Amino acid sequence: MRLTVLGSGAGLPSKERKTQSIILDLIPEINAYFLIDVGEALQHQLLHTNIKSRKINHIFITHLHGDHIYGLPGFLSSRAFQGGENQPLHIYGPKGIEEWLEVTFQISGTHLNYPFYVHEIHDGMTLSVEGYQVDVRLLDHPIDSYLFVFKEPDKEGSLDADKLKEVGIRPGPIYAEIKESNTFEHDGITYNTSEFLGPVTPGKKIAIHGDTRLIKDSEYKRLIENSDVVIHEATFLDNESEKAHEFGHSEIHEVMELFKSLNIDTTIFTHISNRYDENFLNNIKQKLPEQTYIAEDFFSFQVK
Amino acid sequence: MRLTVLGSGAGLPSKERKTQSIILDLIPEINAYFLIDVGEALQHQLLHTNIKSRKINHIFITHLHGDHIYGLPGFLSSRAFQGGENQPLHIYGPKGIEEWLEVTFQISGTHLNYPFYVHEIHDGMTLSVEGYQVDVRLLDHPIDSYLFVFKEPDKEGSLDADKLKEVGIRPGPIYAEIKESNTFEHDGITYNTSEFLGPVTPGKKIAIHGDTRLIKDSEYKRLIENSDVVIHEATFLDNESEKAHEFGHSEIHEVMELFKSLNIDTTIFTHISNRYDENFLNNIKQKLPEQTYIAEDFFSFQVK
Repeated sequence: MRLTVLGSGAGLPSKERKTQSIILDLIPEINAYFLIDVGEALQHQLLHTNIKSRKINHIFITHLHGDHIYGLPGFLSSRAFQGGENQPLHIYGPKGIEEWLEVTFQISGTHLNYPFYVHEIHDGMTLSVEGYQVDVRLLDHPIDSYLFVFKEPDKEGSLDADKLKEVGIRPGPIYAEIKESNTFEHDGITYNTSEFLGPVTPGKKIAIHGDTRLIKDSEYKRLIENSDVVIHEATFLDNESEKAHEFGHSEIHEVMELFKSLNIDTTIFTHISNRYDENFLNNIKQKLPEQTYIAEDFFSFQVK
Repeated sequence: MRLTVLGSGAGLPSKERKTQSIILDLIPEINAYFLIDVGEALQHQLLHTNIKSRKINHIFITHLHGDHIYGLPGFLSSRAFQGGENQPLHIYGPKGIEEWLEVTFQISGTHLNYPFYVHEIHDGMTLSVEGYQVDVRLLDHPIDSYLFVFKEPDKEGSLDADKLKEVGIRPGPIYAEIKESNTFEHDGITYNTSEFLGPVTPGKKIAIHGDTRLIKDSEYKRLIENSDVVIHEATFLDNESEKAHEFGHSEIHEVMELFKSLNIDTTIFTHISNRYDENFLNNIKQKLPEQTYIAEDFFSFQVK
């Protein structure tokens, strides 16, 4: 599992930063990518990666501001000519996106050659996508903006061969049969399979925020605590919390302060305003705690 | 007057070519730019030029295929934050664009801080834009696609001081008065001002095509003949005229053949498919006649 920020900018792109797009690479796990938000020029950014657009089968839209969606029509159209034929695609986003895509494709005479489905999201729902649980939570922004918390399925422990040998069962096809059942018999004794399994490996938990003011309620904290990675916006980097709140955004230091108590392994800040120059950003970066990053375009993180 | 191709690609962008956008720089003439088509990432391309988006006050859309319009919402939104406040903007394009922009801005919660007007175009109309005559002609493509022929106003000849001296009028404020009248009197004689003016300088004529099959009718030829610059699509470069026609496009050699008899000063080909590599393109470029170009992104041409 790898996270790549393809567009790390805020509302206005800069030479260095496109607007928001984030890729969750699940090729090793399920041979697919999840794409979160589709800023303008996402299809251009993809040309500089080895990501095949036909393998992006699930798109999650945090909110409908233009810097998070204006790359969607172009991406969907081009995908049709890039091996996407007959490769179904699902879009999960707020009310309005289906109507917009319909009008867009109607006026531009676009006919996709693959089935695509739009799923309207709302606060508190839980999606099940290719075995991943995706919790959806409304954030605090001038228009409805959502958090997605992706939870990978836990991995069952492997069979403990030593323990099985202790009760007289030697390795062989029987091991597969045992693993598939809850109980098994040997020499007239019934055993619970669970007693012969190693520890469960918990699935990774990744929380990706849409634009938002800082949220502090306990339900929110519960959703993101113990995450392996949290991606949060940091439209303000310079202690201007009040201004951040006024415009429906967050300030990086207040977010870090909140996260201290939530046992978050890695924090990635993105949605970086074009008013900060590289010197200013480098200065902030040098003071970040461990496992905390400010993304640039193509920033990539292997989730271990 | 300068023409710059900001996006020279066809339907699918490549690493080297964005989709279609063309700038007609009229800063020296009217302190404004005309923009023809707005492919995705136009606002990103502008960041690599010295063009101020607030000075783009007139946008002409050849047709509604996505590769010609998907950069429009992002450009319009960003312009509001780039000094565009209260700077009116006019869009001339086929039926459907106004509805699309309305839905786009409604779902994305966008409120532009400048007045903008959408003017629906149709075959045969002539627009008058900042003193420029713009003839609009329907081309031949699977959806309505248009040619725009921009005609700069002719420049009146300057007053011939020698001739005026011959009839006894010495330089002074009187010259300005003479120039503003059709006739003037001196020593009891009435003169026609036109007799004292140097030759008229004809305005430049620039023809910019939307996607199209080759057109050959006489009305079309009349529209583009004697142009200073014609921009034409060349989605096919390899003698595949039949295929070009099948998909509603043109093949470069057939276009050049037609243009031979039309007294066109300069021809610029654009809308270059991503299936041609640089070697292939260089080979074609070497065989082009004089004053004939294949555009790349940021190709720029001073119209003399």
